Amino acid sequence: MMKKIDTSSYKGVRDFYPADMQVEKHLFEGMRTVSERYGYVEYGASPLEPAELYKAKSGEEIVNEQTYTFTDRGGREVTLRPEMTPTLARMVAAKKRDLPLPLRWYSIPNLFRYENPQRGRLREHFQFNIDIFGITTLDAEVEIISIATEVLKHYGAQTNDFSILINSRKIFQDLCNICDVTDDQKYTLSKIIDKKDKVEKEIFREAVEKLIGEKTDVFIEALNSNQKLISLLGEENINIKNLITLIEKLEQAGITNVVFTPTLMRGLDYYTDIVFEIFDTDPANRRSLFGGGRYDNLTELFSDDKVPAVGIAMGDVTLIDFLTTHNLLPVYRSETMVVLSSVKETDTDHTLSLAQKLRTMGINVATDITDRSMGDKIKTTLKLAVPFFIAVGSNESESKQYKVKNLLKEKEAQVNEEGLKDFFVSNT
Amino acid sequence: MMKKIDTSSYKGVRDFYPADMQVEKHLFEGMRTVSERYGYVEYGASPLEPAELYKAKSGEEIVNEQTYTFTDRGGREVTLRPEMTPTLARMVAAKKRDLPLPLRWYSIPNLFRYENPQRGRLREHFQFNIDIFGITTLDAEVEIISIATEVLKHYGAQTNDFSILINSRKIFQDLCNICDVTDDQKYTLSKIIDKKDKVEKEIFREAVEKLIGEKTDVFIEALNSNQKLISLLGEENINIKNLITLIEKLEQAGITNVVFTPTLMRGLDYYTDIVFEIFDTDPANRRSLFGGGRYDNLTELFSDDKVPAVGIAMGDVTLIDFLTTHNLLPVYRSETMVVLSSVKETDTDHTLSLAQKLRTMGINVATDITDRSMGDKIKTTLKLAVPFFIAVGSNESESKQYKVKNLLKEKEAQVNEEGLKDFFVSNT
Repeated sequence: MMKKIDTSSYKGVRDFYPADMQVEKHLFEGMRTVSERYGYVEYGASPLEPAELYKAKSGEEIVNEQTYTFTDRGGREVTLRPEMTPTLARMVAAKKRDLPLPLRWYSIPNLFRYENPQRGRLREHFQFNIDIFGITTLDAEVEIISIATEVLKHYGAQTNDFSILINSRKIFQDLCNICDVTDDQKYTLSKIIDKKDKVEKEIFREAVEKLIGEKTDVFIEALNSNQKLISLLGEENINIKNLITLIEKLEQAGITNVVFTPTLMRGLDYYTDIVFEIFDTDPANRRSLFGGGRYDNLTELFSDDKVPAVGIAMGDVTLIDFLTTHNLLPVYRSETMVVLSSVKETDTDHTLSLAQKLRTMGINVATDITDRSMGDKIKTTLKLAVPFFIAVGSNESESKQYKVKNLLKEKEAQVNEEGLKDFFVSNT
Repeated sequence: MMKKIDTSSYKGVRDFYPADMQVEKHLFEGMRTVSERYGYVEYGASPLEPAELYKAKSGEEIVNEQTYTFTDRGGREVTLRPEMTPTLARMVAAKKRDLPLPLRWYSIPNLFRYENPQRGRLREHFQFNIDIFGITTLDAEVEIISIATEVLKHYGAQTNDFSILINSRKIFQDLCNICDVTDDQKYTLSKIIDKKDKVEKEIFREAVEKLIGEKTDVFIEALNSNQKLISLLGEENINIKNLITLIEKLEQAGITNVVFTPTLMRGLDYYTDIVFEIFDTDPANRRSLFGGGRYDNLTELFSDDKVPAVGIAMGDVTLIDFLTTHNLLPVYRSETMVVLSSVKETDTDHTLSLAQKLRTMGINVATDITDRSMGDKIKTTLKLAVPFFIAVGSNESESKQYKVKNLLKEKEAQVNEEGLKDFFVSNT
């Protein structure tokens, strides 16, 4: 006897059974609808990318141990993309001359990270990416943040279900400069701040002090109090002014749940100015949903042209956690409207031809012409979450009158052939 | 100066710029619509699979040199799926007890093969897969073939644009038995027949003769003439009768472009009975579009339960070639309906608020509030293939009357704010 193969999927990735797939499709539909409402068009690319794409400017964390990278038989180093922005920058740089600006693009790629699976983090997830190229003004940030909030609202989220944290890389730079932090220290410091909430206050303080010494108190006080930060940099500081203008413009666009958060660092290294994250406000799921910012220099990796850009991204795994926490995921129902079942073998032809007739009317119909009992067939239909069931026998074939069982509502109605379409539409 | 990174994608895979992506979405939409019309629901899975999944029963060609297989850092052998059926069988076997039969599932996965890219064959492609589980009768084959032809017709193809070749593995077995071909020889022989049309007649004959000897003439004559094959096996042969019944049932379902083709082998090893392919009839593109068949034993790899199954699959690359050959691909038009452009900086607020108003009406709107010239903005809009353009100045803000430019038809119309939605809908 042959050894049986394990039915598990590969570690840390998901199988999408129809009910799971419907959730993904629900998420994707919201991303697509809202993006297109704002004039964005969809692009895509293969998950296979030359490894060198990630060596230049991604966060160190990503480049090192956390990607799937292998050498193909032709000696090429290939990476399963861990994020979409480098691919996007590559594609924009490749056709820079043919692409009209401003460019509004979105995509829903699957991304891969080699890490130990945990809540909210798997080895493969889908990520909604939306980016605008060619706009240097804050209107780009306002539009991108507006779309992100609209997407969440599309799923039924309320304004107070999430909050928008914003910061500016340039403000961080200015603060560093005032505190005599050298360029070499800035990167390490940003990583320490990024992990601030995960460690004890004292440990955080020690790590900062070890790096920047006597200015530690000034530095940490400024991080902890926007008031102190602003007075330290001065109200005339161009980057502070810029951030305040952004907050005002967001308010004008109806977005008020915005919090200036000087400790917001973002993991990726290519951001150049404003950065933002959208957090779930529910204490049971305090996670980042969206993350993004301005990255004006990324296309420079490929050519001398710089194209200003702002983008944001959200993963499906964290989004599903968010929607589950707030009870916003829809109940599964099959895409199929009705199962037509033959009573006897001699009813097969009529069952199949009625099915065809309904299909041409735009109704999704499955047939069951097996010789199982009617009880079994109804049970199957219920299990498939199909709402309606019709048994087609010789009486029905002659009279063209059908008993339609509404399985979800446990009701039954007599409907004639011509009325079936309207009946289904008005009863769902 | 930093060395620039090449903007090319990885060898043999595609970037999907918005126009390319729209083609894919058009293809996927057709697959989804028709599948769901027949009561099929969508499933999905990660492209990462345990390598052992492919070692048991795929075609040898696939297992050997043609997959992307690598070892992860945990020592697991991983394969980028080269086909979907093993994943499907794995998923069905895993939840066999919870899944009601008959099961109707479809998917549109991306698949990977390590091979030299050529026309119609890339290293990554998308493939429509549709399968029915739990039906032992020919109704399963009829339904699957019906759906495949409906999908092609959904894109505008005519019946005579393609033909459906069918064969039976069991007829091939019977023919082999009559010609004293041993079980060991059958597999090699099927591979020789699979390549028949690619070699000279004489070379084909020699290859067969080398393998089976004196019965070569009988064997080849039967392959070349259905009449001779049938009289050799006898009209009462159960597998011949089954095939004729299938042809009759297809005819009853309105499918007449069916050709019994004893040389049709199909590359994959898990088929157990009827196999079929759909070919483009255009001499400029004589390629196989769809391929499939019955595979009743595949779930046996995972458990002792056998679940009868019939499925078919079609790749996007060959489908695009088919639709291009028959001039059936739609012209690209942006999903965006209109670009609203501010005339001066002071018109920004009104432009943005009009955009929001139209969006709540369900219109896809992009704004252009840059300070570029109106001529440049119109040029950009045209290049984006957006049909309408409106310049929003102070006159328009006051009168709520807008000059709508129809860029595709080079016409202009005066429309008031309330009338904009109807205007767009009725002019596209």
